[in-house]
Amino acid sequence: MKMEELKRILEKRNLNAALFYSLSMNPNPNVVYFAQYYGVGALIVPKSQKPFLIVPEMEYERAKKSMIKNVYGMDKKKFFESVRLEFKERGVKAKNIGIDKSAFTLLAYKNFKKQFKSIKTEDIALDCLKLREIKAESEIRKIKKAFNYANAIIKRLLASFKDFKTESQAAAFLEYESKKLGLGMSFPPIIASGKNASMPHHMPQNTRMQKGFCVVDFGIRYKGYCTDITRTVFIGRPSKKEKGIYGFLLDAQKDIINGIRANDNCGKIYDRCVKKLGNYAKYFTHGLGHGVGIEIHELPNLTLNSKDRLKENMVFTIEPGIYMHGKLGIRIEDTIALRKAPEMLTKVQKELMVI
Amino acid sequence: MKMEELKRILEKRNLNAALFYSLSMNPNPNVVYFAQYYGVGALIVPKSQKPFLIVPEMEYERAKKSMIKNVYGMDKKKFFESVRLEFKERGVKAKNIGIDKSAFTLLAYKNFKKQFKSIKTEDIALDCLKLREIKAESEIRKIKKAFNYANAIIKRLLASFKDFKTESQAAAFLEYESKKLGLGMSFPPIIASGKNASMPHHMPQNTRMQKGFCVVDFGIRYKGYCTDITRTVFIGRPSKKEKGIYGFLLDAQKDIINGIRANDNCGKIYDRCVKKLGNYAKYFTHGLGHGVGIEIHELPNLTLNSKDRLKENMVFTIEPGIYMHGKLGIRIEDTIALRKAPEMLTKVQKELMVI
Repeated sequence: MKMEELKRILEKRNLNAALFYSLSMNPNPNVVYFAQYYGVGALIVPKSQKPFLIVPEMEYERAKKSMIKNVYGMDKKKFFESVRLEFKERGVKAKNIGIDKSAFTLLAYKNFKKQFKSIKTEDIALDCLKLREIKAESEIRKIKKAFNYANAIIKRLLASFKDFKTESQAAAFLEYESKKLGLGMSFPPIIASGKNASMPHHMPQNTRMQKGFCVVDFGIRYKGYCTDITRTVFIGRPSKKEKGIYGFLLDAQKDIINGIRANDNCGKIYDRCVKKLGNYAKYFTHGLGHGVGIEIHELPNLTLNSKDRLKENMVFTIEPGIYMHGKLGIRIEDTIALRKAPEMLTKVQKELMVI
Repeated sequence: MKMEELKRILEKRNLNAALFYSLSMNPNPNVVYFAQYYGVGALIVPKSQKPFLIVPEMEYERAKKSMIKNVYGMDKKKFFESVRLEFKERGVKAKNIGIDKSAFTLLAYKNFKKQFKSIKTEDIALDCLKLREIKAESEIRKIKKAFNYANAIIKRLLASFKDFKTESQAAAFLEYESKKLGLGMSFPPIIASGKNASMPHHMPQNTRMQKGFCVVDFGIRYKGYCTDITRTVFIGRPSKKEKGIYGFLLDAQKDIINGIRANDNCGKIYDRCVKKLGNYAKYFTHGLGHGVGIEIHELPNLTLNSKDRLKENMVFTIEPGIYMHGKLGIRIEDTIALRKAPEMLTKVQKELMVI
């Protein structure tokens, strides 16, 4: 994706190359984005030569299946020594290098500097996030396909919700339905029933599902791209007050979405939500939304004081919630692609489902 | 776990406190280990006061369920500003601080230094890994329970292997069986059939399972602890040569395990394996094994030139493999707890299963 735009950034910032690496099982999002490679190794994008990957021998075959034609096996035990030798071999200048400082650890940097003693580095994390913030048409096609899968899977869960005795069973169902289609997960599904629902990041328990609101937050990964959907159902018979709170939150969420326009300031959208929630705003303990793409949390940030602005072809969530400690939790989350107008990617019933 | 040992390290290295943080969805292994907390936030362990957690408001309830009694909500938008204020509030000296430089990013460090201008930091990553390398009895109990689950699940997969039409279906089955018991995954399962088996980190595909060797590499997570098991089955009818290669690798793997003694040098165990593999050694493209605990890859390293030594109550894998590019791949991996003698945690048939 957008390799040429990255090279223009290098040109503009007077950098010889960009270097992204992953040494753990967690793929580096910029390596996934620019190379469609999910493994261990480093992606080097020189300003004026072809990009290349350096990977451990065991990853060679997998790396050859990526978008990058030039793949080199590590020939030294020290990772950054192999990188240095490959810079030399390929005649890439290593004076000023762009790196992602939000994904570069202090330890890796120390090892890197041992090999590249006189190098200067600049942080291009934000440039990359900005590149990734506005999606290309080919990305939007993948994201839509990802949501087609995710919408269908969560609908199947909701249709058979009464069959699940525990939170873990419901979470397992979501993963099973995803995995057997060859999809990955954006994050482990959240199924939070009863009191647990007041913890926005609750981990499903293998104990009996509790009565009351139950939050279902779920995302798959398709060709590298994430989805993010939350629905809240009610197990048992909701009181008039409970129905009222749900309806109040749903109206607020719909209003926010209907009000979205290109060029809106994200901090102001957040403020608008807080205002709408009125007395309930004190129970709304997280951001209103975030961009979605290669990472589950990307730009823009729809949070307090955010200066981000919405632009055409951004993809982001709107997810207000109400969490009353030890009592209840409700969250309703849709993902929107901002085209000429907001286009809803989440296509799943929002009216309160009573199980 | 071992909070007192950590404090002794701080004492010895003349550090005022240790600071570990996680700002992403991936829990920091040291926070999991010392606090049994899986969320976003920072764990501070002062040398001579009680440890405390600082977490975003939305994580407060979850953090209260951890081992740490003192939990504080972030009261500033800037994470490390909240941390600084809490140091002050609690009267913790912030002159020399121990951090894990393998998990601290350059960006976080910059933000940290803005708040703690005159602080000095030292890397205690290796101290923590060393602490975690030798397991306490309570950890070994959890790890054994984790293996009881994992052994049973992979056995169920192998017993019904012929039912799976695609790699993705088999991988989905492993995850489903785990998740419905409330278990997490140590890593996404690897199911690599036919040619794919020659890629040690192949990701399951949703295409028809191929004939030939099929590598199944799978691990769950129970109460924070990982398991790691690999078995290779054969789909179709193996030739005499194929049976021969499998038997040869299996004999080598068993010999290595039988030869293990406390105080062995890990690099030498690796060498012994390479020697045993003879002409096949060139097809063995990864390490022989690694420690298993809170992380799927911990100390000790059973790799070329490793200086690590085996000690009682270490838990580690032995996993030789043979990968012939475009042809076949075989890996046999057991996890061992080194007690007085090696104790096998993996209890799953190793003779070649023909599907």
